[in-house]
Parts: sequence; structure tokens; C-alpha cells
Amino acid sequence: MTQYISFQRPDGTSSFGRLDGETVLDLGAPGGDAWLKDALAGDLSVLVVTGEFARAAVRLLPVVPNPGKILCVGLNYATHVAETGREQKEHPAIFTRWADSLIADGDAMVRPLESERFDYEGELAVIIGKGGRRIAPDDAWDHVAGYAPFNDGSIRDWQRHNIQFTPGKTWPGTGAFGPHMVPAGEVEDLAAQRVQTRVNGELVQDQPVSDMIWDIPTVIAYCSTFTELHPGDVIASGTPGGVGDKRKPPLYLKAGDTVEVSVGVIGTLSNPVIDEA
Amino acid sequence: MTQYISFQRPDGTSSFGRLDGETVLDLGAPGGDAWLKDALAGDLSVLVVTGEFARAAVRLLPVVPNPGKILCVGLNYATHVAETGREQKEHPAIFTRWADSLIADGDAMVRPLESERFDYEGELAVIIGKGGRRIAPDDAWDHVAGYAPFNDGSIRDWQRHNIQFTPGKTWPGTGAFGPHMVPAGEVEDLAAQRVQTRVNGELVQDQPVSDMIWDIPTVIAYCSTFTELHPGDVIASGTPGGVGDKRKPPLYLKAGDTVEVSVGVIGTLSNPVIDEA
Repeated sequence: MTQYISFQRPDGTSSFGRLDGETVLDLGAPGGDAWLKDALAGDLSVLVVTGEFARAAVRLLPVVPNPGKILCVGLNYATHVAETGREQKEHPAIFTRWADSLIADGDAMVRPLESERFDYEGELAVIIGKGGRRIAPDDAWDHVAGYAPFNDGSIRDWQRHNIQFTPGKTWPGTGAFGPHMVPAGEVEDLAAQRVQTRVNGELVQDQPVSDMIWDIPTVIAYCSTFTELHPGDVIASGTPGGVGDKRKPPLYLKAGDTVEVSVGVIGTLSNPVIDEA
Repeated sequence: MTQYISFQRPDGTSSFGRLDGETVLDLGAPGGDAWLKDALAGDLSVLVVTGEFARAAVRLLPVVPNPGKILCVGLNYATHVAETGREQKEHPAIFTRWADSLIADGDAMVRPLESERFDYEGELAVIIGKGGRRIAPDDAWDHVAGYAPFNDGSIRDWQRHNIQFTPGKTWPGTGAFGPHMVPAGEVEDLAAQRVQTRVNGELVQDQPVSDMIWDIPTVIAYCSTFTELHPGDVIASGTPGGVGDKRKPPLYLKAGDTVEVSVGVIGTLSNPVIDEA
């Protein structure tokens, strides 16, 4: 399965490439952010190798370092709806985060000074390839570049300050996104892949993508009705039941923990947790 | 009172300038978006005039055409909290919109095909000058470049699809922002300025800025705790009671209407309403 990554070259510049065992094949071209978004909208397999690095010599970046839009689906698994005590509605709950909250695989997730309730949310991230508005569900798959694991790290106290989630959902160092993107066309049975979160090795979330209340085509159709989607935009498709905040006793992330989110054949995202200095 | 505008020159290029009666003094310099944000972070009064146009020859753009972050404060006037039937919380409700939902003074606000409940929300917009994180309330005024009227046009049916507002709050052609920015230092008594909305001339919202539950320094301190603010970011500071959705009978915007939002000495924003074609 092809693994595309965004990364920092040894000279500090950013690029996009493909993993080949312990080698990173650099596919980058001038143009940075705009180039990457154009590339995601097209056929990644035609990109030309422009350089090569040892895997250990590069630093991973979030799969898309600077998405124009990050849409997060709340309450998309019945188990999670139930544990929050909320009723299921006819349409998905959508909130947002900004790109400056994203971190890569291996980066530290940061519990901010202001919170005692830092929580994980393992998710499947959908990376938009071809953009569009009012995308029909039947056409939605044509707009997906690929998939990656996502950890929608949540500051629960601030998320619950009032009725909108934003203040708990876009803190720096809370949105882990990686390690790589797998092209949509290579995932044969997306619905069967399990979204699994482990905290220090203990399995705390575990459900197949097929358990989503609103599946990926439905979510893409819904979101693209109220806003245009562009290449490189990201949809974090919701978290299964088992979040730390609803466990008895609660399981909040603390310095020294390791959180892993795996989504079946798509890959595993792993991040240590630190306290903000 | 100095009136800064973003505008399109007769040749179609974008710029930033200052109104002088019926003349637009072009203050633009190469660098576009990044230049404007740098300029907003500094002293606008030192910008050099690089050209001049008749007011009628340019097209207004949203005051900041491409803010990195647009934070919207919900439920910031007791009258609006009351009319929504919600309880007042200890912290503000914050949600977001994206820059591609913004329009300028005079542009049409667009009722989308999917909605019968298109509503106005007259607001004071705060434009961030100097960025920062964890800005103390006492320092907050130093981070404000200026003010402008804002109409946080809302698709009420979609806003209420589920518990998060985003699907009703960022449709194209719904966020009116203008006509101009007045520098913060020139507004002597911000608290006394009245946020007034008129639909076809009828006054439907009318409260002073001093009625805000969370004042501007408190909102800046709160938002900059969970996310870094950057020059050109916009805070739409909340709407007074009197929204169309809560009137009896409801007053939704329809094609042919004109909506005006004025904020005292800061200025008046006026937009016609059209149905999406």
C-alpha cells in the first residue's frame, strides 16, 4: 500500500514524498502548499521522484500541513452519541479546527496549562483530492485523495464551557495527523477497517468504519453543500465510543503517555503526551 | 474618522487603501495578502499613497478579504440568549466561519437553494492587528487594528441540524463585512456605539456595545488562550436580540430585501438579498 508523507528534508525545507521501506522518495516540486494541493487533486502516481533520503534523516509533518479547511464530524458513532447522553439527530454535527493545531506522527500531543481534561479521539481522516460544491453522494469517492489516522485531541473542560466545541478543539499540539496518507483507490474495504485507539497499549476505542452513522459519501455531500471543498481539505470523520472523558473513572491524557490511533490497513499514528512547559 | 478599505482596482487587482471623500487613496504594495496582514499589525498611518482612484471606479472587497481565522461569538447579548431560550454560561460560545463566506458592502447576500430560513445578525467586527497568544485583557486593546460592521448571515435550518452551528454559518455569500475599517485609536467610546440592524429600513436590532456579556478584551483574552491570533484575524463579537428567526412572526431574508448593519460612528454596511440562481 503506497504511503505518502509530508516531511521536512534534512535542510529544513518542506516537501511531499513516498515511503519505500527505509527510504523517502522525494516527490516535491517548487510551489509548496499550492503545489501540494494541486498534486492531491490529480494523480499522485505520476509524480516524479526528485530526490531521496533515508527515512531517519527526515522529520514527518502532518499529512497535509496546511489544509484550508478541517471539518470535524461530531457524534458519528452510536456508541459515542450514547456515552455523551445526547440524542441522535438527522444530520451530522460539524465543527472545525485550524491548521495550526496539527502535529505529525511522533510529535508530542500537548496538554495545555489550562486543562486537567485532555482527551484522545481516534478517527479516520479523509483527505479531499478534487474539490467541489454540492458533491452528490454517488460522486463523493471521486473527490477523496486518501485516508490517514487522526487524533482529534480535545480539551474537554474548554469544549464544555458553552454549547460550541471550538474552544476545546483547536489548541496547538492537539490534532495529530499521520503518519502517512494511503491513496483511496488502494483501500479495498474501507468499511471493514477498524478505528482503534490505544493509551499506553490499552485498547480504549475499537469500531469499524462501517459503524459510522453518516458514511463518508454522506458526510462529503453534506459538508460540500454548505461550503466548497478544496484539494487538501480534511474531514475528521468522528470518533467511536470510549473517549476518556466518559470512562468510569475518566482516563485523561497525561505527560508520559503514548496514544496510538490505527485505522486497519491504513496505518498507525503514535504520539507521546507532554505537559505544556 | 479614517476609513480603510480593501478594494479591487479598475484593472482587477486587489489592494488596500483609504477613503478621502469620493477618492480612494491606494496604499497597496506588492505582497498581497501577506503584505496586508503585516500592514494591519503595524501603524497604518505611515503607509504611503501609491495611487488614486475615483470611489466609483473601484469595487469594495471584504475589509480583510482573507482572514486566517474568523471567530464568531455566540450568545453575547442577554437579549439574544433569552430569545434563544438558552441559559447563560460562564464563558462565551465560539464558533467559526471561513474566508470564502465573506462578501463586501454592496455585494448580495445569498439565500441558498437549501434554506427557507436565511437570517441576519448585525455585529461589531474586531480586526486583529498585532497577533499573540494568551493576551491579557489589559493588553487586548493593543492587539486591535480596528472595527467594522459585520452581518453574520445565518442559515437557521442548517444551524439547528445538530448541536454545532458550523453548517449554518459559513455558506458562500453570507458573511458581510464592511464597508471599511475604522482604526481602533479613533473610536473614543466604543462601548456607547449601538449595533443596529435594519431590514428594508425597519429597525430590528439595536443595542450598545456596552450590553455585551463578554466585552472585547475578555473575548480576545479567551480566544487567544486556545488559539494564536494573527494580524488580520477577525472576531465577530456577537449579535443583539431581535434576530429574524426568533421574531413572532419570524422575519427571514428574501430576495429584494436590503439589510443594513450600522455600528455608531464606525459605519454602515448595506447589502441586498438575492436568491441563489
